[in-house]
Amino acid sequence: MKPLPDVLKTAIGQRVDLIDTPSLVIDLDAMDRNIQRMADFARKHQVRWRPHAKMHKSAELALQMQRAGAQGVCVQKVSEAEALAAGGVNDIYISNEVVAMPKLQRVARLAALLAARGGRLAIAVDHPEGIERLAETIAQVGTPQPREGHWAAGDSTLIDVFVEIDVGQGRCGVPPGEAAVPLALAVARSRGLRFAGLQAYHGRAQHLAGAAERREAISAVVRAASHTRDLIEATGLPVPLITGSGTGTLVHEAASGVYGELQAGSFLFMDADYARNEREPAQPTFEHALFVKTQVVSVRDTHAVCDAGHKSHAIDSGLPTVALLPPDRSLRYANGGDEHGILHADGPKSRLPALGRMLWLIPGHCDPTVNLHDVMIGVRGGLTMGVVERIIRVDARGALT
Amino acid sequence: MKPLPDVLKTAIGQRVDLIDTPSLVIDLDAMDRNIQRMADFARKHQVRWRPHAKMHKSAELALQMQRAGAQGVCVQKVSEAEALAAGGVNDIYISNEVVAMPKLQRVARLAALLAARGGRLAIAVDHPEGIERLAETIAQVGTPQPREGHWAAGDSTLIDVFVEIDVGQGRCGVPPGEAAVPLALAVARSRGLRFAGLQAYHGRAQHLAGAAERREAISAVVRAASHTRDLIEATGLPVPLITGSGTGTLVHEAASGVYGELQAGSFLFMDADYARNEREPAQPTFEHALFVKTQVVSVRDTHAVCDAGHKSHAIDSGLPTVALLPPDRSLRYANGGDEHGILHADGPKSRLPALGRMLWLIPGHCDPTVNLHDVMIGVRGGLTMGVVERIIRVDARGALT
Repeated sequence: MKPLPDVLKTAIGQRVDLIDTPSLVIDLDAMDRNIQRMADFARKHQVRWRPHAKMHKSAELALQMQRAGAQGVCVQKVSEAEALAAGGVNDIYISNEVVAMPKLQRVARLAALLAARGGRLAIAVDHPEGIERLAETIAQVGTPQPREGHWAAGDSTLIDVFVEIDVGQGRCGVPPGEAAVPLALAVARSRGLRFAGLQAYHGRAQHLAGAAERREAISAVVRAASHTRDLIEATGLPVPLITGSGTGTLVHEAASGVYGELQAGSFLFMDADYARNEREPAQPTFEHALFVKTQVVSVRDTHAVCDAGHKSHAIDSGLPTVALLPPDRSLRYANGGDEHGILHADGPKSRLPALGRMLWLIPGHCDPTVNLHDVMIGVRGGLTMGVVERIIRVDARGALT
Repeated sequence: MKPLPDVLKTAIGQRVDLIDTPSLVIDLDAMDRNIQRMADFARKHQVRWRPHAKMHKSAELALQMQRAGAQGVCVQKVSEAEALAAGGVNDIYISNEVVAMPKLQRVARLAALLAARGGRLAIAVDHPEGIERLAETIAQVGTPQPREGHWAAGDSTLIDVFVEIDVGQGRCGVPPGEAAVPLALAVARSRGLRFAGLQAYHGRAQHLAGAAERREAISAVVRAASHTRDLIEATGLPVPLITGSGTGTLVHEAASGVYGELQAGSFLFMDADYARNEREPAQPTFEHALFVKTQVVSVRDTHAVCDAGHKSHAIDSGLPTVALLPPDRSLRYANGGDEHGILHADGPKSRLPALGRMLWLIPGHCDPTVNLHDVMIGVRGGLTMGVVERIIRVDARGALT
């Protein structure tokens, strides 16, 4: 891994008010509480959690969650898997389809590397051609050899394969039911591949605003997943695991008795979009832990302008909100383009901030926001009086392929 | 500068169909024609062009445009200026307000560095406090010394300063007219600062859909800028330059007789948003030169899914369009989240693409799209049969501060 730039190393130990703007800042106390609550929740429901690393893209945070009980990571891209493996993560699931042969060759090499380290690579499929290509490249890598006692001799599979079913997202995956059966059987027949179960994730359900809507959506998801499982098991092939879920709906998958693994990632940081939605009473209280620190660089009678625009935070799920203001004050953030935000006083007692004033934004969507930054600045002791404890590298930033 | 990763160096000379996906690809032939047309346009109108590098963020492309006649670059951020200076660009204008003292200290150091190299740094201001702080940090750097004969002995100014007026954008800048006069005089009085003129950019006017709307908006902009100039010059202080304009309206500023410099940047690549708007007859024909190469990774009866989502291209100005299809085919790109795009057949003769098919997207907005990528892959000979000629580094990617 690349060493941290000197300028960042010198930031460690500095007070929070000296952090340059705009910067992505983690409230480490809030993040640690979120991890603990997720660990407690998973233990209580006797379900595994495999947090999606497409959100934080950081090996350091992945390993921190593993120490708290998480089962490895999910990723969406081969290059994300490579970046996290380089950072020491050994149990990685690419919860997405890969069909390009050069990429599948990288998948096979990574599977062999992780197996040799005593870990495991998994991937999703939704097409017979994808399964054939995967099996072909896995075969080229050859039978895995035990090394340092990690790899069980006699185990001839090198990669875990999940068949993806489309449980409402309308994106990848085959329709639930019969269509999944031949795929599962094809995986099970393929040398080097192990049929690991079903990938069943309804991304859009995470962001439905009403708690009842989300409950209803996941109830249909659970029925579709268990029906598909029953059809596959009727052929005599066991379905070891159904994996999916996210921060918006994890209460329902955890209670379903059908899902064995939760892929929720956003609980770590939370974002403004999740905060806008009606909360499920049974859901653990996850706190905002990710902020963009910004400074007011221009003031007018009608508005103020800060130095964070949509190159600092993603706006695909709405604009950021302004946090940590005095209780009787409120500021509305309006889009000011790539490099600026426009601030309006919101409500009768609110005042526009002064020139030079530092402000804290909660991004609308954490995943693509993190992907804009090379590092996240971890603060201990709160965002008012805290100090910089560590600089967390976004190892898989821009890992698109 | 960091060396290029080996994997990218080996891509040079490869055929275009071997480029991994999703990747940002430049059609170098189209880009070179855009540069030539812009150079011809500026020469014909006897106006300087200082292309905004917030768009391409690449020292290599900045220097290529300088060789074609461009006058240095604009940037929005101090760290962008530093990254481009490190890449060999010597004439840089930070067309934005900076008020944090640590950042202003970096500005002062960079001004001294560029002056010593025979270049020049410029910056925008819109507040007396900003001017005071800038003058204070410039004074700390001390009087510039002539080195290698570049720096004219006796010239005691280290930085050019433009007073920003808000000509309709509703963001930074003082209102046009009287409010700019004391700022211009304050700059002129400040040791180490040279009053360089007016920054007058109407960003939103660039994206008005109708040609008549844009003409009308810029006609008001030109009146506001020339009125402000007249008020300042009435005090005896000359206004050396009025700078601004963008790709959407450059025809009008160039013909105004008021603007001496055009800051247009997007002409280099163009984007889907500019293409959607009504074309001004007098505008040079700028071609799309920036594409996201993507692959179909999942197919269904109703849609196909490609591997480029909004971590590969920005969606703040709308979704990408699918380019380079056979004439009787058309595909509509729908948002599939961070890592996926959903493709629908558009029109009766259109067919969904096959699994593994490579497609070319034109991003909705080039500036924040480039900022998602570490490199741009330059292809010579067209996107069907061409080869990779060079890998262009996005030097200022993520340069937010």
